[in-house]
Amino acid sequence: MREIIEKALAEGRTALTAPEGRAICQQYGIATPGEGLATSAAEAEALATELGLPVVLKIVSPDILHKTDAGGVLVGLRTAEEVRQGYDTILANARAYDADARIDGVQVQQLVGGGHEVIVGAVTDPTFGKVVAFGLGGVLVEVLKDVTFRLAPLSGDDALAMLDDIKAAEVLRGVRGAEPADRKALADLIERVGRLVDDHPEIIEIDLNPVFASSKGAVAADVRIIVGERPAQGERLSRDVILGQMTRIFKPRSIAVIGASNEQGKIGNSVMRNLINGGYQGRIFPINPKAPEIMGLPAYDSIAAVPYDIDVAVFAIPAAFVAGALEQAGQKGVAGAIMIPSGFAETGNHEGQAEIVAIARKHGVRILGPNIYGYYYTPENLCATFCTPYDVKGSVALTSQSGGIGMAILGFSRTTKMGVSAIVGVGNKADVDEDDLLTFFGQDDNTRAIAMHLEDLKDGRGFVAAAREVVPHKPIIVLKAGRTALGARAAGSHTGALAGDDKVYDDILRQAGVVRAPGLNDMLEYARALPLMPTPQGENVVIITGAGGSGVLLSDAVVDAGLSLMEIPPDLDEAFRAYIPPFGAAGNPIDITGGEPPSTYENTVRLGLTDERIHALVLGYWHTIVTPPMVFAELIARVVGEERAKGNHKPVVASLAGDTEVEEACDYLFEHGVIAYPYTTEKPVAVLGAKYRWARAAGLLR
Amino acid sequence: MREIIEKALAEGRTALTAPEGRAICQQYGIATPGEGLATSAAEAEALATELGLPVVLKIVSPDILHKTDAGGVLVGLRTAEEVRQGYDTILANARAYDADARIDGVQVQQLVGGGHEVIVGAVTDPTFGKVVAFGLGGVLVEVLKDVTFRLAPLSGDDALAMLDDIKAAEVLRGVRGAEPADRKALADLIERVGRLVDDHPEIIEIDLNPVFASSKGAVAADVRIIVGERPAQGERLSRDVILGQMTRIFKPRSIAVIGASNEQGKIGNSVMRNLINGGYQGRIFPINPKAPEIMGLPAYDSIAAVPYDIDVAVFAIPAAFVAGALEQAGQKGVAGAIMIPSGFAETGNHEGQAEIVAIARKHGVRILGPNIYGYYYTPENLCATFCTPYDVKGSVALTSQSGGIGMAILGFSRTTKMGVSAIVGVGNKADVDEDDLLTFFGQDDNTRAIAMHLEDLKDGRGFVAAAREVVPHKPIIVLKAGRTALGARAAGSHTGALAGDDKVYDDILRQAGVVRAPGLNDMLEYARALPLMPTPQGENVVIITGAGGSGVLLSDAVVDAGLSLMEIPPDLDEAFRAYIPPFGAAGNPIDITGGEPPSTYENTVRLGLTDERIHALVLGYWHTIVTPPMVFAELIARVVGEERAKGNHKPVVASLAGDTEVEEACDYLFEHGVIAYPYTTEKPVAVLGAKYRWARAAGLLR
Repeated sequence: MREIIEKALAEGRTALTAPEGRAICQQYGIATPGEGLATSAAEAEALATELGLPVVLKIVSPDILHKTDAGGVLVGLRTAEEVRQGYDTILANARAYDADARIDGVQVQQLVGGGHEVIVGAVTDPTFGKVVAFGLGGVLVEVLKDVTFRLAPLSGDDALAMLDDIKAAEVLRGVRGAEPADRKALADLIERVGRLVDDHPEIIEIDLNPVFASSKGAVAADVRIIVGERPAQGERLSRDVILGQMTRIFKPRSIAVIGASNEQGKIGNSVMRNLINGGYQGRIFPINPKAPEIMGLPAYDSIAAVPYDIDVAVFAIPAAFVAGALEQAGQKGVAGAIMIPSGFAETGNHEGQAEIVAIARKHGVRILGPNIYGYYYTPENLCATFCTPYDVKGSVALTSQSGGIGMAILGFSRTTKMGVSAIVGVGNKADVDEDDLLTFFGQDDNTRAIAMHLEDLKDGRGFVAAAREVVPHKPIIVLKAGRTALGARAAGSHTGALAGDDKVYDDILRQAGVVRAPGLNDMLEYARALPLMPTPQGENVVIITGAGGSGVLLSDAVVDAGLSLMEIPPDLDEAFRAYIPPFGAAGNPIDITGGEPPSTYENTVRLGLTDERIHALVLGYWHTIVTPPMVFAELIARVVGEERAKGNHKPVVASLAGDTEVEEACDYLFEHGVIAYPYTTEKPVAVLGAKYRWARAAGLLR
Repeated sequence: MREIIEKALAEGRTALTAPEGRAICQQYGIATPGEGLATSAAEAEALATELGLPVVLKIVSPDILHKTDAGGVLVGLRTAEEVRQGYDTILANARAYDADARIDGVQVQQLVGGGHEVIVGAVTDPTFGKVVAFGLGGVLVEVLKDVTFRLAPLSGDDALAMLDDIKAAEVLRGVRGAEPADRKALADLIERVGRLVDDHPEIIEIDLNPVFASSKGAVAADVRIIVGERPAQGERLSRDVILGQMTRIFKPRSIAVIGASNEQGKIGNSVMRNLINGGYQGRIFPINPKAPEIMGLPAYDSIAAVPYDIDVAVFAIPAAFVAGALEQAGQKGVAGAIMIPSGFAETGNHEGQAEIVAIARKHGVRILGPNIYGYYYTPENLCATFCTPYDVKGSVALTSQSGGIGMAILGFSRTTKMGVSAIVGVGNKADVDEDDLLTFFGQDDNTRAIAMHLEDLKDGRGFVAAAREVVPHKPIIVLKAGRTALGARAAGSHTGALAGDDKVYDDILRQAGVVRAPGLNDMLEYARALPLMPTPQGENVVIITGAGGSGVLLSDAVVDAGLSLMEIPPDLDEAFRAYIPPFGAAGNPIDITGGEPPSTYENTVRLGLTDERIHALVLGYWHTIVTPPMVFAELIARVVGEERAKGNHKPVVASLAGDTEVEEACDYLFEHGVIAYPYTTEKPVAVLGAKYRWARAAGLLR
């Protein structure tokens, strides 16, 4: 195999010939039509008879790339006579097209067909490396872009899942009496393509298009392979090394502030104030050659002058002075350089950024940033930032690539009283990136969920690997910006052209078990709610509502969120009916009707929490005089609390429709572990849907 | 034609035979394959030769429904000999299948094909009546439900628009070198189907499947027609009559409260208090036989006893007493009966509801409800409801079918200080429904936008007709609940089966120019924002942002909302660049970069407002010390105000990322006509998108 590839590269070709492609497929057990090379009309006839008619004839010439244009392809030759004549015709056409073309002969190939036309391929994605693609052929993939991607290599189960992941999945199972595809054989072929490109990084793109997937197997009728240079592989630090570095950064025993200042309005002053007022208990060393002390703490001329070990250095000096100070910090042995200054890659100063990265590498220092607001880690009362302090402890860690989004995180946290373990700006991501942070937060007992805003990933595979470690234990929420931007990528294959947009990110993040938030506000709400919600044990969602109108909208939301309304068994239906008026509707939604007293809410919700067949509750509240908002809130909080104390842990979300008192009721419910929103039927259910997406990815549902 | 249909019905058939279907198509100029009926093998041969080979042979028998099962179909007969033999084979098969079957002969039909297989059909929708469907054939319509609907009859332009309305629209234009369809011919065929079912209400369903749409025309290869009884046509009041009634209801000179009470907590007491405290200036007549006066107003034993004319009677008595009181109110000549009581259809009491409707009809009284919270109309200071009063005057009228949603409207209005012209509960919609309300609000100068929550429409065509009158003048926002419920409709045709879900509503509401809100919160936000926003003059949207991160998310949101980022021409790019730092990014989004002073926002926003090529602005604000939130808010409000005073009316929406001060800044901006939201990049753009959807439907964009 390597010979074939090297030969092509040596000849300056990036596209392999059809026989070369076929040879490679054969080595990986990927079925291709029977074929052979004929160098005379008689040989062509003999081959055709051996393979079985009808056949296809194709010119084989390293100098003729567009065979069809050259009249070098004849399809569906049905007799020996047609094959003989066809051979001569093709040769004549080829000579007429290019008299100087080297001609190796004519390929005689079995004409395959029948079953479903699908496309299987692989590309080299700039973020994720080798990525396998699958879709139905023809118009479905062409016009509707109905295609799905996975990291290569992939397991047989992953390959099988791809078959169900396209919108037209049903087609493969046979519709309108059509023959179903052999799913096992097709998945097997996809898996082999994954292994093939993983084993041979020099294969940049591969198209098997079409593959004929019938009930008898899967045959790649056409193979197109593009080869090139082996893509460079970034080096990766070991998990232990990363964890050691990150632990020193998030739980530092001491912090130096380079550029600390007494002058209000200066970043070096804000950082000092936030560290001190935030309640950080480690040592703080202001570095400023011009002041003897800063905010009551002795200042040092340089970090070198500090007579103690230092874990973290916060940089609050102009970009021009960073390199020198970083060299000193490196010599001092700091673990983390919190690089607040801007003026690096984001303003075009790529050299300056490369320079500080090189200095940091040399000394084993990790840079967070540059061009960031800093970071918060509440378990250590650590506010190493120039923003206002934030100290509401909780269990979600949030990170953002953009300062603006970081500020939105802060404002949202404050206004919703969202408890956080950390808020981290990653800015230009010159060094520390999301996989480093996942590695730390994944094992951090203070963090139960992680939410990340990102615009790109430096190392998609590193991210996926880190995410896969974390997801079984805690949810990762990702807001991937640049969702709708169309990639303008030059691609040499069909698969390459299809992989040019956000779909690759979407599929692979899902494959990694990440919960993708569609927008900023969704990310914030998921981050706020997910850590507060028990994990559901199964897929049975029940709606209990005091307003039929909310019930209908909540049902819509349930379907939108990919959740399943439980089919209520007769005994359970009867049990619910015992509590609701005769004109109320059992079934699901359970409509207890408006104007019911608190006891009706209590009885039905308690039944929902205790019956083991129910896994999650969605409540629809309607403001009435009989059961005012705060009465509802206190009642639900109490019942949910009582049942949780008995071991009945189920997620409960609520939509409150009513006058403004419902806002206070929602706050109260949130504080008591019931996810509640006013004036929306969508948000509570969307958040429940996010929890379910994670629970499924983590394999926690029965 | 009527003969054919009547013959079928007389014979107890609902499905027409193929020749019958073809005859009907021919009358409407819908091309079908050449064909004829042969009663001997020789006739079949002659016909086939005349029509042109190849042909299809099909048994024609009123007793054989499933022709294929009976061996009654032979496809692709290529020679005269094959046709002769085929005739005999089919006859033998048919006799073997059912010896007693009446056999009219064998249909000889041209074998058509080539071009694109599409489906054109029509169904009788319970809400909208005759509805035309179009989709691509085969797997696209089967598995992906890629189909679109329109009310019949439809114009040629509407039919052409249908071709572009399916996801796979591109296919018809020819992809991968395929032949493009003759769009004109295909649209023409669709239009004819619309006319056909409109002219003949007895045609319940029609399937032309497949239609072969090639560059040479469109031919319906197979016709299936289901006939039945002419659907009953509801009677409709004239616009003038409705307007007269609604005007008396919304601008009453006098109101009687039947069941008025002095006892706190009673509905009749709440209504009285809200009428009086709300500031209603007309006469109020409490009706209560047991009290001499209610809240200081003289009470009457019955409405009959009131010595003045009465426009509106609010019912606050139990359901059992409604009929008697309504009879009296009818005799008194009231225009509107505001039917707050529950206990009618919603609890299964359909007879009781039918009874009061009959009484109302008899007297020409319009019933609002029953089972409602009442209604508000702020221009008259009118709070005819048992809820709390709401008096913030504004220009959006909201209606809800559910009391719960009504309460959510009230709470949301109060907390956001949303100005409203009206809030109306329609409840069971025994009488007054959305078209009546559209007729009033459409011409009401106090109302500039209408938002409606609805679960069904009693008369879909009436709604569409009313909406079409209104949309050119003001937006209609609809939250249609029950979106995702799958219709479980028995259907005799393919088109019928496809029309079973929410897609019909969606397409036809869009056709009517209605802006559909995906959820409750969206409806509320659209209602709040749309009346405050100037109408854009064109599609050129420009993003100006202080945070690159927000710019990326705002761009995502722009694409999601169906908006177009303007391509900035070089001179305009240069003009923007003059105001932003060299490392900022012009283009679109225009990234002015963080840390810029207020003047940078001012200069760029003013340029955006004054340059005539720009039609709408999306602002991304990033909280900094240099330009704090309220400085930004006051600045933008001032610049927008100044430019609007100069005649530069453009919608401006803003996303504010920052600490909690951005909330106050958003409130300030909203009050000054700039639509602004904190902690979300999606919502401001979604609201702008809604305005655009309306502006396009109203034909207001250049």
